[in-house]
Amino acid sequence: MDKGKYQPRDSMQSPRFSHPATFMRLPHVVDLTDVDIALIGIAYDGGASYRPGARFGPREIREQSSLIRPYSGPQKTYPFDRNNVADCGDIDTAPNSIDKTYELSEAGITRIRDTATMPVSVGGDHSITLPILRSIAKKHGPVGLIHFDAHPDTWDEYFGGKYFHGTPFRRAVEEGLVDTHRMTQIGIRGPLFGSDDFDFHKEHGIRWITIDEVRERGVRAVAEEMNQRASGKMYVSFDIDCVDPAFAPGTGTPEVGGLDSYEAVTFVRALKGIDVVGLDLVEVTPLYDGPGQVTALLAANLLFEFLSSR
Amino acid sequence: MDKGKYQPRDSMQSPRFSHPATFMRLPHVVDLTDVDIALIGIAYDGGASYRPGARFGPREIREQSSLIRPYSGPQKTYPFDRNNVADCGDIDTAPNSIDKTYELSEAGITRIRDTATMPVSVGGDHSITLPILRSIAKKHGPVGLIHFDAHPDTWDEYFGGKYFHGTPFRRAVEEGLVDTHRMTQIGIRGPLFGSDDFDFHKEHGIRWITIDEVRERGVRAVAEEMNQRASGKMYVSFDIDCVDPAFAPGTGTPEVGGLDSYEAVTFVRALKGIDVVGLDLVEVTPLYDGPGQVTALLAANLLFEFLSSR
Amino acid sequence: MDKGKYQPRDSMQSPRFSHPATFMRLPHVVDLTDVDIALIGIAYDGGASYRPGARFGPREIREQSSLIRPYSGPQKTYPFDRNNVADCGDIDTAPNSIDKTYELSEAGITRIRDTATMPVSVGGDHSITLPILRSIAKKHGPVGLIHFDAHPDTWDEYFGGKYFHGTPFRRAVEEGLVDTHRMTQIGIRGPLFGSDDFDFHKEHGIRWITIDEVRERGVRAVAEEMNQRASGKMYVSFDIDCVDPAFAPGTGTPEVGGLDSYEAVTFVRALKGIDVVGLDLVEVTPLYDGPGQVTALLAANLLFEFLSSR
Amino acid sequence: MDKGKYQPRDSMQSPRFSHPATFMRLPHVVDLTDVDIALIGIAYDGGASYRPGARFGPREIREQSSLIRPYSGPQKTYPFDRNNVADCGDIDTAPNSIDKTYELSEAGITRIRDTATMPVSVGGDHSITLPILRSIAKKHGPVGLIHFDAHPDTWDEYFGGKYFHGTPFRRAVEEGLVDTHRMTQIGIRGPLFGSDDFDFHKEHGIRWITIDEVRERGVRAVAEEMNQRASGKMYVSFDIDCVDPAFAPGTGTPEVGGLDSYEAVTFVRALKGIDVVGLDLVEVTPLYDGPGQVTALLAANLLFEFLSSR
Amino acid sequence: MDKGKYQPRDSMQSPRFSHPATFMRLPHVVDLTDVDIALIGIAYDGGASYRPGARFGPREIREQSSLIRPYSGPQKTYPFDRNNVADCGDIDTAPNSIDKTYELSEAGITRIRDTATMPVSVGGDHSITLPILRSIAKKHGPVGLIHFDAHPDTWDEYFGGKYFHGTPFRRAVEEGLVDTHRMTQIGIRGPLFGSDDFDFHKEHGIRWITIDEVRERGVRAVAEEMNQRASGKMYVSFDIDCVDPAFAPGTGTPEVGGLDSYEAVTFVRALKGIDVVGLDLVEVTPLYDGPGQVTALLAANLLFEFLSSR
Amino acid sequence: MDKGKYQPRDSMQSPRFSHPATFMRLPHVVDLTDVDIALIGIAYDGGASYRPGARFGPREIREQSSLIRPYSGPQKTYPFDRNNVADCGDIDTAPNSIDKTYELSEAGITRIRDTATMPVSVGGDHSITLPILRSIAKKHGPVGLIHFDAHPDTWDEYFGGKYFHGTPFRRAVEEGLVDTHRMTQIGIRGPLFGSDDFDFHKEHGIRWITIDEVRERGVRAVAEEMNQRASGKMYVSFDIDCVDPAFAPGTGTPEVGGLDSYEAVTFVRALKGIDVVGLDLVEVTPLYDGPGQVTALLAANLLFEFLSSR
Repeated sequence: MDKGKYQPRDSMQSPRFSHPATFMRLPHVVDLTDVDIALIGIAYDGGASYRPGARFGPREIREQSSLIRPYSGPQKTYPFDRNNVADCGDIDTAPNSIDKTYELSEAGITRIRDTATMPVSVGGDHSITLPILRSIAKKHGPVGLIHFDAHPDTWDEYFGGKYFHGTPFRRAVEEGLVDTHRMTQIGIRGPLFGSDDFDFHKEHGIRWITIDEVRERGVRAVAEEMNQRASGKMYVSFDIDCVDPAFAPGTGTPEVGGLDSYEAVTFVRALKGIDVVGLDLVEVTPLYDGPGQVTALLAANLLFEFLSSR
Repeated sequence: MDKGKYQPRDSMQSPRFSHPATFMRLPHVVDLTDVDIALIGIAYDGGASYRPGARFGPREIREQSSLIRPYSGPQKTYPFDRNNVADCGDIDTAPNSIDKTYELSEAGITRIRDTATMPVSVGGDHSITLPILRSIAKKHGPVGLIHFDAHPDTWDEYFGGKYFHGTPFRRAVEEGLVDTHRMTQIGIRGPLFGSDDFDFHKEHGIRWITIDEVRERGVRAVAEEMNQRASGKMYVSFDIDCVDPAFAPGTGTPEVGGLDSYEAVTFVRALKGIDVVGLDLVEVTPLYDGPGQVTALLAANLLFEFLSSR
Repeated sequence: MDKGKYQPRDSMQSPRFSHPATFMRLPHVVDLTDVDIALIGIAYDGGASYRPGARFGPREIREQSSLIRPYSGPQKTYPFDRNNVADCGDIDTAPNSIDKTYELSEAGITRIRDTATMPVSVGGDHSITLPILRSIAKKHGPVGLIHFDAHPDTWDEYFGGKYFHGTPFRRAVEEGLVDTHRMTQIGIRGPLFGSDDFDFHKEHGIRWITIDEVRERGVRAVAEEMNQRASGKMYVSFDIDCVDPAFAPGTGTPEVGGLDSYEAVTFVRALKGIDVVGLDLVEVTPLYDGPGQVTALLAANLLFEFLSSR
Repeated sequence: MDKGKYQPRDSMQSPRFSHPATFMRLPHVVDLTDVDIALIGIAYDGGASYRPGARFGPREIREQSSLIRPYSGPQKTYPFDRNNVADCGDIDTAPNSIDKTYELSEAGITRIRDTATMPVSVGGDHSITLPILRSIAKKHGPVGLIHFDAHPDTWDEYFGGKYFHGTPFRRAVEEGLVDTHRMTQIGIRGPLFGSDDFDFHKEHGIRWITIDEVRERGVRAVAEEMNQRASGKMYVSFDIDCVDPAFAPGTGTPEVGGLDSYEAVTFVRALKGIDVVGLDLVEVTPLYDGPGQVTALLAANLLFEFLSSR
Repeated sequence: MDKGKYQPRDSMQSPRFSHPATFMRLPHVVDLTDVDIALIGIAYDGGASYRPGARFGPREIREQSSLIRPYSGPQKTYPFDRNNVADCGDIDTAPNSIDKTYELSEAGITRIRDTATMPVSVGGDHSITLPILRSIAKKHGPVGLIHFDAHPDTWDEYFGGKYFHGTPFRRAVEEGLVDTHRMTQIGIRGPLFGSDDFDFHKEHGIRWITIDEVRERGVRAVAEEMNQRASGKMYVSFDIDCVDPAFAPGTGTPEVGGLDSYEAVTFVRALKGIDVVGLDLVEVTPLYDGPGQVTALLAANLLFEFLSSR
Repeated sequence: MDKGKYQPRDSMQSPRFSHPATFMRLPHVVDLTDVDIALIGIAYDGGASYRPGARFGPREIREQSSLIRPYSGPQKTYPFDRNNVADCGDIDTAPNSIDKTYELSEAGITRIRDTATMPVSVGGDHSITLPILRSIAKKHGPVGLIHFDAHPDTWDEYFGGKYFHGTPFRRAVEEGLVDTHRMTQIGIRGPLFGSDDFDFHKEHGIRWITIDEVRERGVRAVAEEMNQRASGKMYVSFDIDCVDPAFAPGTGTPEVGGLDSYEAVTFVRALKGIDVVGLDLVEVTPLYDGPGQVTALLAANLLFEFLSSR
């Protein structure tokens, strides 16, 4: 298969603000045959405990990705030439049922990864990671996990339900989708429910790195540890709330004192060399951003940096 | 029981912007014994097909009701003296399950109407009307219904589910909660799914009045017809989207060309004399309003006008 | 004195968005010698009971008046040719003292009307009307008053103080500044404090016209009555909240169900022929408007229509 | 050619907020062969004298058209079954040159109308109407024109240039693209440059109807006159600023006192029976709207009503 | 007295967005008998020199504190178990008089600290600190002061008045409420009035630490010095504008180049071990924040971190 | 010539929010005779490739500069005493023509620098730097250039045109206006068009410093290099997008991962000692900022720091 089949619309000919907005102005491709990396939206926010609106995440990130250009200077790569990357639209969801959304999402991801295509999923709230991992694990077995987040998302139940945006990683571990010894959480902070919030981690050997630890040891040292814990097939889940609300106000459960945008970009670039079989970027809720939509803009750049690292 | 037990905080002593916001600056009362009319929030938006955020409706309407004063000039009544009106907090909901939310909402309303208290429910999206009607009908049998809305909300299924904000009235009719011959819908407009969207109405003798008919015949004539069709125990469901987006931009599925705010107020005042056993005001989504929050302000005034008519 | 001395900046040469913003792009004139009509800001909002921000009213109305052109089609007049109209800056106020602000405002207005210049004052909250009337009455004796507002603003005390934005007209009557038999209030509506809110009016022969009366009789009939009650020197006070929040969300104490913008313009045009010795336009609070700043835009047009009627 | 080839995405399966936003959730079609009516964006705002941002008009109207359903109740038509309607993307423009944009726009429209497809163009500022008319007139000769607007847009020069959003109709008349005796302007209002602003109209027999005339005679009477003046091939240009800023704040040069949304819809429905060969809807600038984006929503509905009338 | 009497509403049962908003979802308690730490609003902004709106600070911080959970991981404490913390409502103020507001505020604080309750006051603008200190000093004598702020707030007069948000600390020193040798200001920056702005500090032995010094020496070193200067009863005044406008845009007199949110949190945590007899957090003006309300969110977290350190 | 002729309006007498907004509340001076440093607006955004609105930059920076006080603590200077600084209004532009705008801008700058006045130009988009440099170079010959920006702005053509906001520095070099060996670009980052984007730099000896280099070496080291490369007459061009979108969301082509506000201020202070003959600050687009307008506020402070360094 030839690479570079799908290129962003030429911004010297078609102004950036024109035409229907797609991820990075790439073609909207439905036939996955020639797609290496599928940018796909999962527009669901029924798993949000506080601020809703992540359902509009995929559309706004498409809009704000209009500024993306085709070359990464720091990584020295043309991501759209190295892989065939396309906007593959959204996976249909059911706003009135998390169960049905989980079925649809798993099926949708399976359709993608069946054709040797890596899914890069744009949420949506964090509950969507579970069906993605279900599909991924069916192909690859339990995967390692790099998880950027302010919250561990390993709580057990909300309102008597098992599925929510605060529970996907407990479920994933319980279902055997993740190899916890290759699981690392970065950016944890904010008020907690109790001193036992990390008992689950201790029990399963999950490594969690708080923002305090990041501040003490520095981003570089933490990124190195992240890399050392990575081996085999890895999945990456990036909750935008790992970033500080000054840089990413448009999110569902913001926590102050987080990463800045340069640090976030640095962490994503550090994924280079890791064998990533899928990534999601979740919890962008455009309704809570200002007119500059800096959160969606940051999300678009994080996706670009990830693509540039493949 | 003495009337006038609960009075709004005195705005000549406590500025309107101070203290925790409650509906109309009334006391937050948990013990319903002496309450005649319970203002109650049902903060749920899992039934929204397009724009989320009605979960923040009760809080924002509390906030914007701070301007309400205790006397209605046009109606010549002191509503807080005629009835004991209080902010009875919110009914707990389950953001991750419409089924559980329906159980909780029905139980919550039942707890209220058990003590001879009239529930005035503040949504939340329109899906919450069904459990309210279930509770109401258990006490009163099938009730008549006055329904202000841009949409009929009598569709059958969304995404394979029976419960959503576009289906409550079909369900209510099917479940025998409403006497369709005393059911009137006012304000209908906007693009439809098909020419058969009102077959259900024709079959059941439901009267629907489009905005075009309101414009042709005038508000007064329509209000008169509304009154003539009312008899016995009546329930009122007020979807804020019956009002034009210029006057009520903060709503989930806005339709252009609606009522203006004066007309909306006029319709609510016209309820005087009708034996209303419950009312809900739904679909206020503050995230889509501007800083003036004119939608929540209008909602607060409609509630006040209703209270003044009791 | 030659007329037409001060002309708006030519928008065919200097784009509307350029240069420091002045009222209607007129010159900022400090020497009042040749000024017939002085547009003047009184940037004070210490008299606001609910939403603050009217202190930014003059600046935002300057900004949004950039679209004003020099000719009124309906009135067939060139207002800047008929009178020398200028932006005379702001009267300094004291944000920490309503007493000092009253002194400064009265002195400022006196300086203006001393040189045979008509003051057109841009607020600021409604408390500023009292010092203006004090100055005006010193020159002209008690004046008639046309007062557009959602509220009567004849309450007595707030928080133990006599001066506030809800009291100026009671004070003005008490101080003998206004001839109550030539005083007319238009647009009154919204919840009141009590059934005795208009006892003061009845006692003094003040005519108040509610929005309900406007809707019943029509704008034209009401405007005629307004004109019939006007005789001798008249003062006009225009509180933007007489207009509905859909058309004027940027205000301190909005009340739903008000005039629309066309009706407001119509009332102002109807002032033609009345001997107006001063006007104020108050209660524009830009912080509560959206990015379109439609409230300040409406205010700018109302001022233009008034100027065109002189 | 079969009709109904292109249908909006099914909103019962794909939520309205999902997938890349296209006009009315219709397919994005590049091959015009089977297209009857081409919805096309012209994202250019270099002709704006005051507020920029109409370049984002097409994208936002796509976004807000997500609520459109497939059937018009009042018109009793399924517009997407009667004609093959599609989102044909945008015509590329050159943000740094109005001359080049005119060339590109005319060529783009010609490509569309060459295949017997009616162009429905979404601006962009009003300067884009001129190149559209150039193309239209090459096919049909001088057309009649129905022009909804607050402004006549027949001024001559701005900043020494002939092309701008205030001049397209003077240019069109000068170039012989329009038959002025079949040209009608509706909604004119706001401060003017001078008493001679309509000399051009008088000279050429152009009929202009001010908002004052609309208010006096009523929408129905004016719509009838509009229809009587229409004969032969007609073009329709709809500047959203004919609507009042309360209903359409997101526009470049707003004028208070305009049509309300119901009246705007009524005028568009009244086009039924007129032989329209093209329509544009211009001057939607989303940056000046609030989060509810009521202006783009209105624009989407006006387009739907027009399609339903074909 | 048992500790842990007042607990936040359980967010697994009552969604965070439901019920009237109180500080940290704690009970609204009027009887202070069992309260150790009283969270109290003082909603006054009549002392603001530039941007108003701090009157809405207490309400918005209540709203945004909904995300707070009951355990501090870094501090390893359950603040609501160690002390009885409650939302004690607002102290009534008089928007039209700073003198009366001062009386009311002092009396309100005295009522709180009379029952051995520590007042944690939420402003309001910075002028409210003076009456608090008056009350505190009456009980404890002159206290030491830790003052986070971009401005020294030791100016003398504004507009001829002694009381304003730029003067409270000069007044406090003059009135003998503060022991200047235990007074430390942190975060000072921005343009000044003159080179003598700190003469008062030099004269009284007040230590002021500019942001430049913080940048040079680091937060840890500055926090250590802060701690060393603290002894005996200390009061803490936290003006949110010590934080950079990127992290705290919603404030009255923002200055660029300030602390980031992590640094602010770090300083508050460093208060552990200091004998604090009262704290205020002031100058949050929600009107100037975006929809994410990151300023109020930060304020809520700073309050939580402080509570966790007690 | 006496210094200190023009002083900011006294904010102890005239509140900061009052009077027409000028840069730093300085007098609006048209006669340049006594002006040393002319603050001048160039309100043009026809060169913007993505987000428009920089045309409102000068007005908003005027507005947000109201908080500036007359003394710089860190620099220990009274800038308005050392030089006569004034708001000299705007240079007229032609929104419909970049060519005409270039002529007008060059002429306007020449008028300023003819009277030995240093122009400090406030944009507008970055395309305006070219005509300024043309004028500057006519007087001083090729100047050195310090250029803060996320982008190199040395691209060649956009949409077939030579003039745009991405091309001014290539043009300036080609026209011999800049001595490339004294040209330094700081802050470069973001996705690029290709690996050859800096071939032009290599060819001409232009030094570009990426944000990655700033992060590695530190601001101080980079500022030193900047100073070492400066000699002779230098021009400074400050594109606000060199700052991170968290600190400067209001800009046309934002790139994540930029300088923070303290670093930006530090760089500007480091210009002390360099012989600067002119400066521009461009690309502030207020429409994309939130209500706090932190971008314009930062711009105002950067200008103040620059003035304080002269």
